[in-house]
Amino acid sequence: MLAVVYKEKGKFALEERPRPRLEEPTDALVRVTLSSICTSDLHILHGSVPRAVPGIIVGHEMVGVVEETGPAVEKVHPGQRVAVNVETFCGDCFYCRRGFVNNCTDQRGGWALGCRIDGGQTLYVRVPFGDNGLTPIPEEVSDEQAIFTGDLLSTGYWGARIADIRPGDTVAVLGAGPTGACAMMCARLYNPGRIVAVDIDDRRLRLAVEQGWADEGINPAKQDPCAFLQACTHGRGADVVLEAAGGADTFQTAWQIARPNATVCVIALYDRPQSLPLPDMYGKNLTFKTGGVDACHTAEILELIRTGKIDATPLITHRYPLERAMEAYDLFAQKREGVIKVVLRP
Amino acid sequence: MLAVVYKEKGKFALEERPRPRLEEPTDALVRVTLSSICTSDLHILHGSVPRAVPGIIVGHEMVGVVEETGPAVEKVHPGQRVAVNVETFCGDCFYCRRGFVNNCTDQRGGWALGCRIDGGQTLYVRVPFGDNGLTPIPEEVSDEQAIFTGDLLSTGYWGARIADIRPGDTVAVLGAGPTGACAMMCARLYNPGRIVAVDIDDRRLRLAVEQGWADEGINPAKQDPCAFLQACTHGRGADVVLEAAGGADTFQTAWQIARPNATVCVIALYDRPQSLPLPDMYGKNLTFKTGGVDACHTAEILELIRTGKIDATPLITHRYPLERAMEAYDLFAQKREGVIKVVLRP
Amino acid sequence: MLAVVYKEKGKFALEERPRPRLEEPTDALVRVTLSSICTSDLHILHGSVPRAVPGIIVGHEMVGVVEETGPAVEKVHPGQRVAVNVETFCGDCFYCRRGFVNNCTDQRGGWALGCRIDGGQTLYVRVPFGDNGLTPIPEEVSDEQAIFTGDLLSTGYWGARIADIRPGDTVAVLGAGPTGACAMMCARLYNPGRIVAVDIDDRRLRLAVEQGWADEGINPAKQDPCAFLQACTHGRGADVVLEAAGGADTFQTAWQIARPNATVCVIALYDRPQSLPLPDMYGKNLTFKTGGVDACHTAEILELIRTGKIDATPLITHRYPLERAMEAYDLFAQKREGVIKVVLRP
Amino acid sequence: MLAVVYKEKGKFALEERPRPRLEEPTDALVRVTLSSICTSDLHILHGSVPRAVPGIIVGHEMVGVVEETGPAVEKVHPGQRVAVNVETFCGDCFYCRRGFVNNCTDQRGGWALGCRIDGGQTLYVRVPFGDNGLTPIPEEVSDEQAIFTGDLLSTGYWGARIADIRPGDTVAVLGAGPTGACAMMCARLYNPGRIVAVDIDDRRLRLAVEQGWADEGINPAKQDPCAFLQACTHGRGADVVLEAAGGADTFQTAWQIARPNATVCVIALYDRPQSLPLPDMYGKNLTFKTGGVDACHTAEILELIRTGKIDATPLITHRYPLERAMEAYDLFAQKREGVIKVVLRP
Repeated sequence: MLAVVYKEKGKFALEERPRPRLEEPTDALVRVTLSSICTSDLHILHGSVPRAVPGIIVGHEMVGVVEETGPAVEKVHPGQRVAVNVETFCGDCFYCRRGFVNNCTDQRGGWALGCRIDGGQTLYVRVPFGDNGLTPIPEEVSDEQAIFTGDLLSTGYWGARIADIRPGDTVAVLGAGPTGACAMMCARLYNPGRIVAVDIDDRRLRLAVEQGWADEGINPAKQDPCAFLQACTHGRGADVVLEAAGGADTFQTAWQIARPNATVCVIALYDRPQSLPLPDMYGKNLTFKTGGVDACHTAEILELIRTGKIDATPLITHRYPLERAMEAYDLFAQKREGVIKVVLRP
Repeated sequence: MLAVVYKEKGKFALEERPRPRLEEPTDALVRVTLSSICTSDLHILHGSVPRAVPGIIVGHEMVGVVEETGPAVEKVHPGQRVAVNVETFCGDCFYCRRGFVNNCTDQRGGWALGCRIDGGQTLYVRVPFGDNGLTPIPEEVSDEQAIFTGDLLSTGYWGARIADIRPGDTVAVLGAGPTGACAMMCARLYNPGRIVAVDIDDRRLRLAVEQGWADEGINPAKQDPCAFLQACTHGRGADVVLEAAGGADTFQTAWQIARPNATVCVIALYDRPQSLPLPDMYGKNLTFKTGGVDACHTAEILELIRTGKIDATPLITHRYPLERAMEAYDLFAQKREGVIKVVLRP
Repeated sequence: MLAVVYKEKGKFALEERPRPRLEEPTDALVRVTLSSICTSDLHILHGSVPRAVPGIIVGHEMVGVVEETGPAVEKVHPGQRVAVNVETFCGDCFYCRRGFVNNCTDQRGGWALGCRIDGGQTLYVRVPFGDNGLTPIPEEVSDEQAIFTGDLLSTGYWGARIADIRPGDTVAVLGAGPTGACAMMCARLYNPGRIVAVDIDDRRLRLAVEQGWADEGINPAKQDPCAFLQACTHGRGADVVLEAAGGADTFQTAWQIARPNATVCVIALYDRPQSLPLPDMYGKNLTFKTGGVDACHTAEILELIRTGKIDATPLITHRYPLERAMEAYDLFAQKREGVIKVVLRP
Repeated sequence: MLAVVYKEKGKFALEERPRPRLEEPTDALVRVTLSSICTSDLHILHGSVPRAVPGIIVGHEMVGVVEETGPAVEKVHPGQRVAVNVETFCGDCFYCRRGFVNNCTDQRGGWALGCRIDGGQTLYVRVPFGDNGLTPIPEEVSDEQAIFTGDLLSTGYWGARIADIRPGDTVAVLGAGPTGACAMMCARLYNPGRIVAVDIDDRRLRLAVEQGWADEGINPAKQDPCAFLQACTHGRGADVVLEAAGGADTFQTAWQIARPNATVCVIALYDRPQSLPLPDMYGKNLTFKTGGVDACHTAEILELIRTGKIDATPLITHRYPLERAMEAYDLFAQKREGVIKVVLRP
C-alpha cells in the first residue's frame, strides 16, 4: 500500500509499504478512508519532534472502517465506520481511570500513531487499544464531518471543558487557526456571552465570525486586544482565555487580557519556555491550565456533530488523492491558496 | 502615641504620633494589644514596595480591642477583642461578592494598612470597612493565638483551600518559614496522607515535623526532593504543591516534583518574572494557581484555633515591648537567634 | 394611590392607599411601571399562605423607577429603571455570604413584598435592602422584557444553575407553565443536547416548542414520558430533571424518568408531603435538590435578556390597566382565553 | 468444601459444596481466609431480598488469597492477599467510566456475590471481573483490618465522599452500627469540626466516642438531637447529615437536624417508602443524595488503613470457625453479648 513516510529530518516520501497486521489482542486494524495533514506533521518533517521515529508512516488524523480486531477488542467490530483517536491509552491505569488519558502510564500510551508507530496517511493502520482508540461514527455523519474528532476537536473540547466557562462569560481565543477554531466551536457549547477571536490573519478571523464560531475578530496588528476586551467587560477583561497560538507574544497577551481570577488555558504546543511575570500579575489571582489533550470524549463529540452543534468541515479547504500527498504537503507548508486543512483520500 | 514609622527608603523610626480618628461611617478604631513584624515590613524598609507611602505607620499583623465604630459598622462593637485583616475590602463589588476580596475594586481595597495608610505597630489604628476588616476573637483564644489570623493564616488557609487537596494526597510545601508553616497547618485540615516540607533551613524543617505540621522535612541541599517525592508516591510525584518560598529555584522545583495533573499553588510573593518551561512540562497537564490571599475566612480560622485544629503560636520566637521595636527589627532583619516571628506589645 | 389589597381569605379588593415612605436607611421607594399576577397571589387569596398578612397590598413581580433612596443605599439612584427582586435579603449574614439568600437570617429576609409587607400591584412600593432588592435595567431592555427578572426568571435561573447540566445532556422539565418555561429558557443556557417539556396542556407544550424553549413536548395523557425519555437516551433516562409542576404524580414521574446518578431539582412549590419510594429508587443513586429560589443573579439575567439569550415576553398573554385588576384576576384564576401571565400597568 | 447456604426463606444450612472453577476469562478464584456476617445476610434469610437465589452460598464480606486467575485478569496474581469487593462491575460501561459502578450495566454487575451467585462464607469463591473485584492488601495490613474494605468501609467512604464535608463542618451521623461507624471514620478524613453520632443504643454511642469516631453521642430517647445540633452550631443545624439507620423516624430526623442548604446523604437501605414533607422543608434548600455504594475506592481505603487513618477492627466483637457458623448466626440475629460484627474463619 502507498504511504507517506518520514525518511529523515527534512524528508518525507511516498512509498510502498506492506499492509500491517494485528500484533496484540487489543489491536484493531482500520482501512483508512480519509486522513488529513496536521501542523505536527510538519514539526516531524523539520525534526522538532525528537521522539518521532524515522521510517514510520506519518498521519494521526484519520477515519476509516474497521477491517479486523484482536480477540480482546469488544466495543468495535469489523465493518464499522470509526474515528481514530490521536492518543493511545490503556483506559485502566491511575491516570486513565481519572480521565487523564494523556498521561497513560502504559509504554504504548500517548501520541504514538504517525509518530512512534505507523500512522494513517496510507490505506491500512494498526490501532493499539482499539476499544479506546476507535469510536463508531453515526450513520448520518460523513467522513469529512468526522475527520477532526480524534485530534483537533478533542483538543478544543478538552480546552473548553477545563476552562470553567459559565453562561454569559466573555471568552477570548488566541489563534484562529484549526486548533483555535475548534476551541471556539467547543467553547460555544457552554453558551458564553461572547467569544472574541484574536489573530493576525484577517482571513481566518473573517471565517471564524462568518461561521459563528466567534462573535468578534480582533487583529492585534490593528487594534489592542486588551483595550477591546476591557471595553466589552465593564473594564474587567476576559473571564476565560484559551491560548491556541503558541507564541511568546500571545502567551503574554493571554494573561494580560484576562480579568482577575480568570482561567487561562494554554492549549497550544510551545517549543520554548515562556516568561511568567509573577510580580506584574500578582494581584490577578489567575489560574493557568497547561498540557495536552485528554482525548477521551470522542463519543460526545461525534454526537454533537450528529446533532449539528459542532461542524468543523469549513476548515477543509483542500482535498487530494493520497497519490498526490507530496503536492498537498507543499501547499500546506507554504500556506498557499488560503489553505487551512488538507484532507487525503487513499 | 508611639509608632514605628516608614520615614524613607532604608529608614524606619520610632516616633510620637497623634491618635487616629474615624474618617468614614464604615471605619472602626482599634486599640492594638499585639502586633508582629512581617517580612513585608522589611520589603517596605528596603524600598521594594513602590506603593508604600513614606510617613505612614507600618504594621499589618495585629489584634486589639475595638475602641469606637462609625455609624455604618454593624458587626463589631466597642469593647470586643478582634483580629485585624491585612486586606481592606468593601464586601460588595463584583469580586468581593465572589469571594475574590483581593481584587476589591474599591479604591481603598487591597493591602492598605501599614502600607498606604497608617498600620498597627502603635497603639491605635483606624480600620476601613470595619465590618469586613475585623473579626471577633472567641474568649478562649489568646492574643498570641489570634495574631496571625488576618495575614499569615489567611494566606495558608487560602492556599490550602484552592489547592483541591483530597484525603490521602501527598502534599509538598516549599518553604518552611511562617507562610509555609501556616500553609502546612491548613493543608492538614484536608487530611492528606502526607505533607512533605522542603527548605534549606534544618531548624525550620525540624520545627515543622516536631509540631506535626509536616510528616517529613527535606533539605534540598542534602537530598533531591524530586527523588524523595517519587519514592513515596509509586513514582508519580506530589498530588499538590504549595510554593511558599518565592525563589527561582523553588519555582522550578514546584512543577518538577508535581505529578501529572497536579495542582501547583504559587502563594509566595515573587519579585521577578519566572521561566515557565512549557515544552518540558508539556505532558504534565498541570494547573497553576497564582496570586495573593483572599482573606475572607477569618471567622473560620478563629474557630479552628479555638477548637485546637490550628495553632501557630510556636512560630512566635521573640517578644518585645513596642518601645524596643527597633531592636526587634534588627534581630528580625539579621535572622539572629533562630528568629521566626517577633511580636510587639504596646 | 390605587392598590390591590388582600382583605381576608377569599377576598382581594381595589382600594385607595397612602403612598409609602422610607422607613429605614437601607430602604428604597420605587414608582411601579409594570407589575404582574402570579399563581402565588391566588394562593394568598385562597388562604394557603399562612404568613400572608391581611391588609397588605399584594404583588411581588414588578419593575419601576427609583423615586427615593435611604442614606445607606449606594448602588441604585433616583431616576433609574429597576427590576424588583421577589426576595428581601441583607446580603451580609452567614447564608447571604454564601449565595443562599433564600435563607437570609434577617427578620425582614425572605418573601416579604406582597405577602408580609405591602407589594407592587399599586403605584409606589417601599423595597427594604434596596441595594439587594433592585437591579438597574439596561436601556435597551423594555419593562415587559424585564418584568419576570426578580421572580420567575430568577427561579428558572437558579434551578438550571444547581442542576449541573452539561453540554449534550438530556433535560426533562415537568410543567410548561410560567415556571417551567423559564426553567427551560435557563436550562438552554447550558446547551443541553435536548430539552423535553412534559405537560398535560398541549397549548403550553406547543408554545414551548415554537419558542425554542423545548425541543419536544410530551403530554403524559397521550404518551408515556418514561418510555419517551428512554427511547432518546440509549435506554438510560434523563440526565437532569427539573420538576416545576408540583403534583404528586409529577413528583413520581420526576425520579422515574431520571437516569441513574441524575440530578432531580424540585423547584415547584408543594402544598403537601410527597412519598419518596427509597426501595424502588435504591439502585438509581439520585441527587435531589429541593427548596426555593436564591434570587441573587438578577444582573446576570438582565444581561442575558439584553443580549437576546433569554426572552420571556411570549409568556405575557394579557395586559390590563391597574384600574381593571379585578377583571384581570378573574381571567387569571379561571384560566380563560389561554392566559399564561397577565401584566398590570398603573 | 463447607459452606453456608441459603436453602429457602427462613433457612440457612451448613453443607458440603464442590470447589468452584473459573468460568470466564475475567474471573478470579479466591481462597477465603476470613469472612463476616452482615445484616444483609439476615435480610436474605428473612426473604426480604427478592433477587437472592435459593441454593447460593451466602457471604459478601471477605478477604483471601488469589488461587487462580482467568487469562484476561491483569492486575492480581495467584498468591496475592486480596480484599473482595461486594460489587461486581465491568469497569467499562457508561456508568463505570464515570465512577458510578453501582449502576454497571453489565448483567453480572451489582451485588452478585452471596446473593445471585455463590459468595464467601466458605473456602473458595469465584469472583467475576477479578481486576475490579479484588484489591491487593498491603503486607502490613492484617485480614481483620482489611475485612470490611469491600463493603462497610466502601459504603462509609462513598457516603463521606459525596457529602461535600468541609473542614470545620458539623456532621451528624444517624445510626452508630457498623455502617454508621464506618461513615464516621470516613467523614473524619475530611476534618469536620465535630461529628455527632445519634443512636438509641448507648453502648454503640460509647464505642463511637471512645474510638474517636464521633465527638459526641446523642441518644434521642434521652435528648432531642435537633436541639443539641442547634445548640452547637449557632442555632443553624448540622452542615452535613449521613443517615445510616434506615428508619422512618431517622429519615425525618435527618432533614430536621440539617441546617438550611445542607447535604443529607441517605446511605441506609430502606425497605419502604418515606414521606418527604416538602412544604415543611421548603425554606431549607436541602440536597438529598440517595442510593447504594459505588465501591470503586478500595485501594485508597486499604492505603488509609495501612497508614492508620482508618481502623474498623473494634467493630469485630466475635470470632468463630466456619464450622460453627450457625451458632454465630444465632448470636448475631439475636444481638446477644453486645455483638456488632462476627467474623468466620474457614
